Amino acid sequence: MSKPQTADVSLDALYRIFTIPEAPDSTLGKIERHLSENLAGFLNAHIVAKEKPLHEIEQDFAKSAIPEQPTFVSDHTDELLSKLVAHSVHTSSPKFIGHMTSALPYFLLPLAKLMVGLNQNLVKIETSKAFTPLERQVLGMMHHLVYGEPAPFYQTWMHSAEHSLGAMCSGGTVANITALWVARNKLFKADGDFNGIAQEGLAAGLAHYGYRKACVLVSERGHYSLGKAADILGIGRRNLVAIATDDNNRIQIDALRETCARIAAEGGKVMAIVGIAGTTETGHIDPLDAIADVAQEVGAHFHVDAAWGGATLLSNTHRHLLAGIERADSVTIDAHKQMYVPMGAGMVLFKDPSLVHAIEHHAEYVIRRGSKDLGSHTMEGSRPGMAMLVYSALHVMGREGYQLLIDQSIEKAQAFADLIASQDDFELVTAPELCLLTYRYVPAPIKAALAHASDSQKQQITPLLNQMTKHIQKSQRETGQSFVSRTKLTPQRYASQPTTVFRTVLANPLTTVDMLAEILQEQRQIAERAVLTQGALFAEAYDCGLLAKEPR
Amino acid sequence: MSKPQTADVSLDALYRIFTIPEAPDSTLGKIERHLSENLAGFLNAHIVAKEKPLHEIEQDFAKSAIPEQPTFVSDHTDELLSKLVAHSVHTSSPKFIGHMTSALPYFLLPLAKLMVGLNQNLVKIETSKAFTPLERQVLGMMHHLVYGEPAPFYQTWMHSAEHSLGAMCSGGTVANITALWVARNKLFKADGDFNGIAQEGLAAGLAHYGYRKACVLVSERGHYSLGKAADILGIGRRNLVAIATDDNNRIQIDALRETCARIAAEGGKVMAIVGIAGTTETGHIDPLDAIADVAQEVGAHFHVDAAWGGATLLSNTHRHLLAGIERADSVTIDAHKQMYVPMGAGMVLFKDPSLVHAIEHHAEYVIRRGSKDLGSHTMEGSRPGMAMLVYSALHVMGREGYQLLIDQSIEKAQAFADLIASQDDFELVTAPELCLLTYRYVPAPIKAALAHASDSQKQQITPLLNQMTKHIQKSQRETGQSFVSRTKLTPQRYASQPTTVFRTVLANPLTTVDMLAEILQEQRQIAERAVLTQGALFAEAYDCGLLAKEPR
Repeated sequence: MSKPQTADVSLDALYRIFTIPEAPDSTLGKIERHLSENLAGFLNAHIVAKEKPLHEIEQDFAKSAIPEQPTFVSDHTDELLSKLVAHSVHTSSPKFIGHMTSALPYFLLPLAKLMVGLNQNLVKIETSKAFTPLERQVLGMMHHLVYGEPAPFYQTWMHSAEHSLGAMCSGGTVANITALWVARNKLFKADGDFNGIAQEGLAAGLAHYGYRKACVLVSERGHYSLGKAADILGIGRRNLVAIATDDNNRIQIDALRETCARIAAEGGKVMAIVGIAGTTETGHIDPLDAIADVAQEVGAHFHVDAAWGGATLLSNTHRHLLAGIERADSVTIDAHKQMYVPMGAGMVLFKDPSLVHAIEHHAEYVIRRGSKDLGSHTMEGSRPGMAMLVYSALHVMGREGYQLLIDQSIEKAQAFADLIASQDDFELVTAPELCLLTYRYVPAPIKAALAHASDSQKQQITPLLNQMTKHIQKSQRETGQSFVSRTKLTPQRYASQPTTVFRTVLANPLTTVDMLAEILQEQRQIAERAVLTQGALFAEAYDCGLLAKEPR
Repeated sequence: MSKPQTADVSLDALYRIFTIPEAPDSTLGKIERHLSENLAGFLNAHIVAKEKPLHEIEQDFAKSAIPEQPTFVSDHTDELLSKLVAHSVHTSSPKFIGHMTSALPYFLLPLAKLMVGLNQNLVKIETSKAFTPLERQVLGMMHHLVYGEPAPFYQTWMHSAEHSLGAMCSGGTVANITALWVARNKLFKADGDFNGIAQEGLAAGLAHYGYRKACVLVSERGHYSLGKAADILGIGRRNLVAIATDDNNRIQIDALRETCARIAAEGGKVMAIVGIAGTTETGHIDPLDAIADVAQEVGAHFHVDAAWGGATLLSNTHRHLLAGIERADSVTIDAHKQMYVPMGAGMVLFKDPSLVHAIEHHAEYVIRRGSKDLGSHTMEGSRPGMAMLVYSALHVMGREGYQLLIDQSIEKAQAFADLIASQDDFELVTAPELCLLTYRYVPAPIKAALAHASDSQKQQITPLLNQMTKHIQKSQRETGQSFVSRTKLTPQRYASQPTTVFRTVLANPLTTVDMLAEILQEQRQIAERAVLTQGALFAEAYDCGLLAKEPR
């Protein structure tokens, strides 16, 4: 990297950066061409495989003063490449199967640049024009995917100023908060001399309606954003009630019903019940139809967090897994997850187009009453035109294209599950319903012995197995060739002990089963080299009688 | 536009879109080159000047079904160009001076594409790596810009896992909500047997501390996002108290103090006082130092909404206008406004790096306790790496580059104010403090007569003048050559009548004073052609005795 030099500070120089494009043979021009022509090659060439410790990377980002002088674009680009790009994460690598960020289709990159160049602001028509009806159409299409209302429904509501079929937002967290905000304001609506919670606040709402508390119910696998929502909305995290799950990480309907009864008996009100369509950790889908029944019985808002699993509706093969979602009052879907759109394309959909009246707001200079400005029904204000990328992805890939992608992801997860189950020294912890699964490494003799172990033996050995899983996951991540994530579950068959597991998300279409076999082999090798961790594990296995002590 | 054809539906075809770039001579390839080589030319060539009515545009976005079959990228791109791009808003046009979205420096476009291609997710290190320390540095630099702490402060806190100097977010609205969320949770912190509002909720917090209500105070010029925040946080909009402003749209400190006393007398608690550094409508800056004094006296959180004006701190010439901002507990700044970064680069800064403990949260699979994952202190979850674009802009332009841009914007606004004041038929309504100003058209004889008008005459003529301003603004927008926005103010010298005004934001460095003169001339011509509106206006002027009736 050349030492950055000082660029010219003058108005002329500044006008140039606003008027004269980067030359094609400049550093940035070359990078751009490289990106356009071969993104995978660019990333492979620039993202270093070996992990540099974070504290070393931090040394490159240690200055707190804004530089006084300008820097030449080419010098700055060199610096970005060596300091930032080289040490970013290759999320589109087919062996990066640990999180929900995967590969992007090529055509979205130039379109993203076009979107950024147009620099529209979707809060209002005056700064977005055709982007506003486009976003309304995207929401209409996604609404149709979930609710399948007949065409006249969309003719009436899709472009109606006072209504909204949903809201695009930065991500699933904002979508979930928005849905519960709507649910809260609907519950505490204006009534008699009470002007509604939006005006008078939560305490006045509880007092007016005579509720001791307002609760949100979700299975213990609920996403952490719901806890944030309970905090932000003033409900309180203790009123986000976790319901026990069955062996397949699905909410127990009996427990849900009992909890509703208990809350009512305590003078509380169930404000919303959240069903999960694709838990973040294991990809399982709650029995949505049964939850809808309970929500109807107790008069609660029914929200479905389908941030991950919502895209499954695009597959006619698998959409039956989400049966009941069409009864939800609101649904969260992230297009930047299984719809292969870049980061920042979340959305919430509303069954009833007038539901957004609960959160409507106006101002004098924009989002005036009666205007079609999208901002009157969104939690965010200024927002970019990400809806364009969802629109393009839906058109270029088509529903059938998405179906192929989703079907092959699920098939691949099933193949990986079979592969894991056939190993002597790996154990499938949660089988895939969508394309997520969890598993762990267990040395062959211990795995064999665990089949007949007592609960107390399981309790004793689990912490050591957890240590091993954590060690493997971190080491594998650090070698930089492949990445699986880890989480903690409490499976009944492991005596409900907090159990650390590998977590994989098989959404990248370029991941092959051979690569998955290599990942297992790499994990096995890391485990075998971990002499101390292995030693401790076997010592405990002997101590607790899981393995018979053998003479040394 | 060619009729879209059906593309191939096969896994092979899908793999191709993930692995084979768009050919340089494809439609999309050509667009991309055009964008790179001449963005302004591209926009001028593609964005149609004449406004097409929204209801006609909506016809192009009317389908609610997701297409079954894929479409060729080139066909889809043609469609996007004719339906969407042609009818988008030319926000970077130097005559688009109505809102806060302006031109972008060229180098940010390829960098934005790189950012999108890397597809990092800033919620956690595992999907962002070097982007995490980069974002922390950007927050550190902006913190330093506002608070100017000495270097050791940043060495200690900038990269500390349990601390945060701020949070990047999608925009100023999320930033303001985050700041007030922190303020609320700090006020209702854990105490004795009360576990804190995050756990127990707002009603329990009010009860524990014995407050009848929690209030947020801001001048009547406060941004509408603060109302949303009061709603979402459960405070209630009626507890967002608007304080009267002086003739320069600045909060009246006496009124603020009186309101604090009244709230205390009513058993309420002032949770936060918000100072505005650049009101959205007029660009005025509250007396921040004086507000800081009041906030200190009553023990309230002091937040500054500098979404627009924060960038002024980059100019040594004008940063004194924001004196006192360094006493704020939190500050909102939007880099996508006066820092010339694309849409989606908001941020909130915290004076005290441990303030974020009030909103800390964790999960099992990410943002674990002790990790440096940014997500443990943000309202949003998954987020793109927009911080990179702020980082690049700060480096390539340097503080001195920004200073030139900001200084010339303010000078241009002053020149425009002088130009308006020198016209017989235009009237400056609010003079620029930053680069915003408001004005209106008033026919010369009426303008002359208004200088000696009674309050009741002003009351009678104002609605007619408002009608004229609204007509001019809409007509000018529809001709598509230039754009100013409009809002309503209540200036004392117009008998505090709701007065419709033109609002301009002169941030685009390519806007010239000649263009501003053309905009006035265009407005004058629209006014003169508006025979009916003129007629009604003059009739009222005669009726109320503002003009002497002349024989016909």
